Amino acid sequence: MENWLPSLITATPTEGYDLAIKLARMTIKKTQGDADVRDRLRPEYAENADSLIAVSAVVATHFATVAAANGYWQSAE
Amino acid sequence: MENWLPSLITATPTEGYDLAIKLARMTIKKTQGDADVRDRLRPEYAENADSLIAVSAVVATHFATVAAANGYWQSAE
Amino acid sequence: MENWLPSLITATPTEGYDLAIKLARMTIKKTQGDADVRDRLRPEYAENADSLIAVSAVVATHFATVAAANGYWQSAE
Amino acid sequence: MENWLPSLITATPTEGYDLAIKLARMTIKKTQGDADVRDRLRPEYAENADSLIAVSAVVATHFATVAAANGYWQSAE
Amino acid sequence: MENWLPSLITATPTEGYDLAIKLARMTIKKTQGDADVRDRLRPEYAENADSLIAVSAVVATHFATVAAANGYWQSAE
Amino acid sequence: MENWLPSLITATPTEGYDLAIKLARMTIKKTQGDADVRDRLRPEYAENADSLIAVSAVVATHFATVAAANGYWQSAE
Repeated sequence: MENWLPSLITATPTEGYDLAIKLARMTIKKTQGDADVRDRLRPEYAENADSLIAVSAVVATHFATVAAANGYWQSAE
Repeated sequence: MENWLPSLITATPTEGYDLAIKLARMTIKKTQGDADVRDRLRPEYAENADSLIAVSAVVATHFATVAAANGYWQSAE
Repeated sequence: MENWLPSLITATPTEGYDLAIKLARMTIKKTQGDADVRDRLRPEYAENADSLIAVSAVVATHFATVAAANGYWQSAE
Repeated sequence: MENWLPSLITATPTEGYDLAIKLARMTIKKTQGDADVRDRLRPEYAENADSLIAVSAVVATHFATVAAANGYWQSAE
Repeated sequence: MENWLPSLITATPTEGYDLAIKLARMTIKKTQGDADVRDRLRPEYAENADSLIAVSAVVATHFATVAAANGYWQSAE
Repeated sequence: MENWLPSLITATPTEGYDLAIKLARMTIKKTQGDADVRDRLRPEYAENADSLIAVSAVVATHFATVAAANGYWQSAE
């Protein structure tokens, strides 16, 4: 996998949130390298409330990092 | 989805808390794009104590980020 | 719901801890709006060790935020 | 309950860790006010590996707060 | 085990993310020293959505640390 | 238990990681004081993928604290 994460800096909080989702998903990709298995697992969590909440928790942690990296986009206000 | 998160800055801690809830929910929306499935899942967590606590954990993490972004609303005291 | 969170500033760490508990509970209230359902769920977590530990985790995250907002009550020492 | 948490400042990291454990336990006490129920729940988590790990996670979050409040006891080195 | 973690500094965010994964895995290695057991456990989590999400949560916490250590790679932008 | 945690300062990140593991384990020891019970619980988590991941999460939180205490070992680079 090439340089998929060139920077934590994003133009807006919205883009920062998308980056947090990408950061959360990348661990899955790097831990389960087989795309077929990942596809098979998708309904297991996308249709399960507790799994979706758990994904949301991971995104929250990454969003905290991305937000700090961007100085909370203070100047974007 | 358009620019749904223009800023992390809110006028009051109360509004900051509401933003944290929005941030927690948005991952669910972006991971499970089908509104019908989401509606079906709602009672699964809204009527389950452990799921509600898990949602509360996600909101806590996001609230930490929003509070830091707002300098903890020190001047609002 | 009116302005239930006017400030994160508290006079003492003890009051800050109580605020953290309030912050943890508010998500439950806002996610499950029906007070009857919440009353029904209460024994489900109040008499379950793992649920109580999970609540404690949420309070810990909020307490970190409240403590930071109050400069860790350094001058209260 | 009186002013059980007068300060987050401790003389040593060891005492700070004990305070973190106290902070973790206090939520249980405040959420389940009945001491008999708490006594009944104790073996449920004290003899269960996953519960003990979950308690450890809560203590870790509180210890982070206590450590920050004490400037990581840098001068105690 | 020799000095496997000489530094938290990485050249890029991408390498920092890989380091976060390494940090997450090392606890498993140090807690379960038997490589055969670890190999046996691998499908248990690599083919389970909730386990993969849990791994992702650990990586997120470590990535926050690595990112802070690197000043969020601000100059790499 | 005597002064088991004299300082959060370590010479290297590697030693800091070991300290984080010690911090994670100490809660187990202090919550379950009976060494025989702890020995009995050990295979329960050391041979279970989800338990090992949960331990890894606790270590990650403690490592964040230890790393911050050490200024991320910047000069060790």
